[in-house]
Formats: sequence, structure tokens, C-alpha cells
Amino acid sequence: MNTTTLYQHGTLALLVPGLLAGTLTMQDLLRHGDTGIGTGAGLDGELIILAGHPYQVTAQGAVHEVADDFTVPFANAHFADYQPLMSVLGASDVDLNHQIRALAQFDNAFFSVKVTGVFTAIRTRAVAKSEPPYQTLAQAAKQQRVFSRGEIAGTLIGYYAPQIFDGIAVGGFHDHFLAADHSFGGHLLGFEKVTGDVSIQAFNTLAQHLPVANAAYRGHDFSADDITGDVHRAEH
Amino acid sequence: MNTTTLYQHGTLALLVPGLLAGTLTMQDLLRHGDTGIGTGAGLDGELIILAGHPYQVTAQGAVHEVADDFTVPFANAHFADYQPLMSVLGASDVDLNHQIRALAQFDNAFFSVKVTGVFTAIRTRAVAKSEPPYQTLAQAAKQQRVFSRGEIAGTLIGYYAPQIFDGIAVGGFHDHFLAADHSFGGHLLGFEKVTGDVSIQAFNTLAQHLPVANAAYRGHDFSADDITGDVHRAEH
Repeated sequence: MNTTTLYQHGTLALLVPGLLAGTLTMQDLLRHGDTGIGTGAGLDGELIILAGHPYQVTAQGAVHEVADDFTVPFANAHFADYQPLMSVLGASDVDLNHQIRALAQFDNAFFSVKVTGVFTAIRTRAVAKSEPPYQTLAQAAKQQRVFSRGEIAGTLIGYYAPQIFDGIAVGGFHDHFLAADHSFGGHLLGFEKVTGDVSIQAFNTLAQHLPVANAAYRGHDFSADDITGDVHRAEH
Repeated sequence: MNTTTLYQHGTLALLVPGLLAGTLTMQDLLRHGDTGIGTGAGLDGELIILAGHPYQVTAQGAVHEVADDFTVPFANAHFADYQPLMSVLGASDVDLNHQIRALAQFDNAFFSVKVTGVFTAIRTRAVAKSEPPYQTLAQAAKQQRVFSRGEIAGTLIGYYAPQIFDGIAVGGFHDHFLAADHSFGGHLLGFEKVTGDVSIQAFNTLAQHLPVANAAYRGHDFSADDITGDVHRAEH
């Protein structure tokens, strides 16, 4: 089992012009990891994979496990081998990321973060599924719902990508969240405080898998797309 | 044997600020392919790997096979499974690339090109090895020699990278050449005409391996580097 490779299907640049077709099944994605994040075809909600179980947070706020034939336009997955980094007591979201970067010293590597604990004033979002013909990421991302909880226990799974890979991945941190009781989750927008345990897993390889059989992807001219601009507006 | 993955050690962005240490041995590189291109530590010449044999073209114009412990800061490798694309009769370098792109229809995929034939008015370059402390790519690349031949038989091995990966790889084509009699080779600058056979091999995955154990890489702040600008000036 390869625990030093981060698998990525699709690349964020695809989403910018609306290449949102599902081009990999969950069954195939799970061959590359038991842990991960992603979205469904047409930006259908927010995915978080924990211990081999792929959960979807829908734009209605519901959390459920998806089937093997669920397809994704973009996802990250890896086989978990997290190493403890630190415990935090009432750390803010900004402080958490600063402390992780300072301790990990992996600014130029891909790594994953796992935080289990209690979060206060946590906000997430989930995008509503678009149907073909797909709109751009900027337009599709407007169809999102924002959720919040005053205090909730759960797990944050995130990936850090070096700035030189911005546009391929989200440069910096890209975090999803799932409540321990599965009552809440999504793409993490922020939180006030977290108390819990932080572990990380560094990778030496990004396995960037592209949907080369997809006609819309093969035929698209990316030269006019504002990739990093639109990614940052939608993912941060 | 995986013939749909292109392995890349290092990323072009590393070379820009002069992160030129050899961070992978040839022995390790050859585990990921029998075909490829690259450069040695300190930009020590131009590498071309054919049928598992790694050849180096030095700045003196000499061609020889390198040892298992030869190290590289940047290289591509894959296991050859080329498929015939076309034959060309007196095609220019620009026409060759245009025809390959038009026929392959893989503008958004990584693929490799192999051309065996006779080339006229061919020009190559090889960079001379720098010693630490390394200069930037722009400075180090000035220490290069340019070679030419009026007519020579040989093999072109190249990689095409989609524009959205420019900076990670060389967006567009990046070609190296080796003469059949090993009397000439290097990073391909251009040629007048080629007559021969063209084959390609498309990949669905880029396995981007980073030198995460290298202290200079881990500690470098890329934010001030003009990555795509310097890569284009040095590699095109």
C-alpha cells in the first residue's frame, strides 16, 4: 500500500470553464485511497472519504454514503498513514494553519492534515448539483448553501498544496469536514476555535490523473480561462 | 508495467532559483521507465534514455552512458509503448509539431513523441555543469554549448505537456535528440527537415515526484521567482 503518493483525479483548472462531467467512479477512486475529498458530477455536493467510506454532504445539508457508481470530476485520495503533529486547545482556523505550516516545514510538499476534535462557530458550504450544459465554476459555485454549528465534534480532512502547484490543486489548504454524528459537514469555510488532535501525512508524489477519454476535456481551449483567479474565488 | 503514467522527478520550477542538486539516482529513475530525458546535478549536460540506457550529452559534445549513481535534479521517464502516428518526408520542426498535435488530438494530455529518421541542419545544446552554490537557471543556462550537424540519423524523444501544467513541465514540446552513431545529441533547438517515422504514447497520469528530503528545496520561497518566464527563456 502506497502511503507516500497523493492521487488526484481531474485538476482544478478543469472546473473553471465548467468541465464538470463525472469522469471517474467512486469504485475506481477508492483503489487509490481510503481517505480523501472531492465533489460529484456537476459539483454535486462535497465529498469526504474516511476509512474507505465516501460521504457526500448535499446542498440540502444531508450527509450520506455514496455508491460505487457515483462519479466525480475532481477528487483527492490517499491511503492514510497520519503521524501525530500536535494537540491544540482553542486554536483559531488561521492559527491552526500557521502552526501546522511552522511545525511541518513542508511548504513545498503536498501533505494531508487530519484534525479530530470539537469545533466552535464552524461554517461549511455545499454546492448544488448543476446539470449539463454546465456553467463555469464561478457561476456554478453561486448555487451553494452555507451551514453552521455553534459547537460540534468531528473530523477535518485537508490537503496542503505548494504554491507552485496553484491551479493544479488549491495552493495552500483545502479542507472538508464531517461531524462525528454525520449531522453536518461540507467544504470548510472557517471556524472560531478547535480543541483536538492534529496529525499530518506528507507525500513525495502527486499522481495527477486526467480524464483523457472525455471529449469535452480533450477539446477544451484553456487559454482564455482565468484559472487561478476563479479557483481562488470559488475554493477559498 | 505501467505504460500510461509519465514519471517526473523534480519540477521545472525548482531549476529557476537554482535548486540544481542531484536528488534522485539514475538507478531509482530507471525503476520508473526505460525511456526519458533529463539533466544531471548542476545542469550537467542533457540526458536521453533509450531502451533502458541513459545517455548523457556533455557540454563538450561527448555522448556516453551514465552510471547508476549519477544523480538528477529533474527528469522524465516512462515505459515505452509507442504507437505509430505517421511518417514524414522532409517536414520542418514547426510542421512536425503542428502535424503531431493535429493528428494526436491530445492538447490537454501528457504524451511522449518518438521520431526516428534523418534530420538536416539540426541544432542542439548542452549545458555545462555548475558547482554549488548554484546560480539561477537563467544564469546557469548561459553556460551552454550549441552543436549542429548538416545531416544525421537519430532518435528524437520528446514530451508534450498541456499548457495548464506550464511551469510544472515545459508547456508544449520538450525534445532531446541522440544520433544513431552516438556522435551527437542534446536538448533539441531545431532542425530544417526530418524524414522518418513518428510514434506517440499518451499518458493519463503524471506521477510528479518531489525532492521532499532536500533541505534547499524544502526551505525555498518560490514567491519571488519568475517561473514560467525563466523556464521559457531557458527551455525554448
